[in-house]
Amino acid sequence: MTTIKTETRRLVSSGEVQGTDVFNTQGEKLGSIDCVMIDKQKGNVAYAVMSFGGVLGMGEKRHPLPWQSLSYDTAKDAYVVRLSKDELKAAPNLNAGDYRQLGDRKYDESVYSHYKANPYWL
Amino acid sequence: MTTIKTETRRLVSSGEVQGTDVFNTQGEKLGSIDCVMIDKQKGNVAYAVMSFGGVLGMGEKRHPLPWQSLSYDTAKDAYVVRLSKDELKAAPNLNAGDYRQLGDRKYDESVYSHYKANPYWL
Repeated sequence: MTTIKTETRRLVSSGEVQGTDVFNTQGEKLGSIDCVMIDKQKGNVAYAVMSFGGVLGMGEKRHPLPWQSLSYDTAKDAYVVRLSKDELKAAPNLNAGDYRQLGDRKYDESVYSHYKANPYWL
Repeated sequence: MTTIKTETRRLVSSGEVQGTDVFNTQGEKLGSIDCVMIDKQKGNVAYAVMSFGGVLGMGEKRHPLPWQSLSYDTAKDAYVVRLSKDELKAAPNLNAGDYRQLGDRKYDESVYSHYKANPYWL
């Protein structure tokens, strides 16, 4: 199986999202997207999970980001998120490989309130 | 970058969905999921694209399926869709690699009405 990397005007494939870089509005690279997490029942994207392997000197960390917090910059071919490096340190993160908290409503609420995003589960 | 294959009770990663087999309710394998196509603005899954490389003797074809048309069978570790092999032949498909129609409303309507699914774009 090959991972399909494609997009249309309105749609983007999961394979295209995976691996896309994420910058902040200051132009600093924060990481790249590992995957999106999809709500099985509702069929919407609960999170884009961003990882950075020590690029900020903090070792491998993963941050779940609400889809709505990402905007796409065509010139950079990257997502941009309003998040300084200091804010990123304070943002909710997952221990490496531990995705189990995602979808737990208390955890979901902590992430979504952090980013002031509209809950994906409502 | 490694593709994250994981799921929680409510969520599933894009990497886990990609490559998952699809059967029909008669227990026949129809293909497997190449990727999901995400609506950039709304952040929901417009399609799971199923491909089959000639397993039914029809060469490589790709079928866009509404997310809601798939149910997950834990015992099979596969998706199940209500679609006989004959119905599949009549179902909307994409020419190999041509994803451009996806997200075009006329095309979207033809697929969603075929599967009697609730439009993802409303």
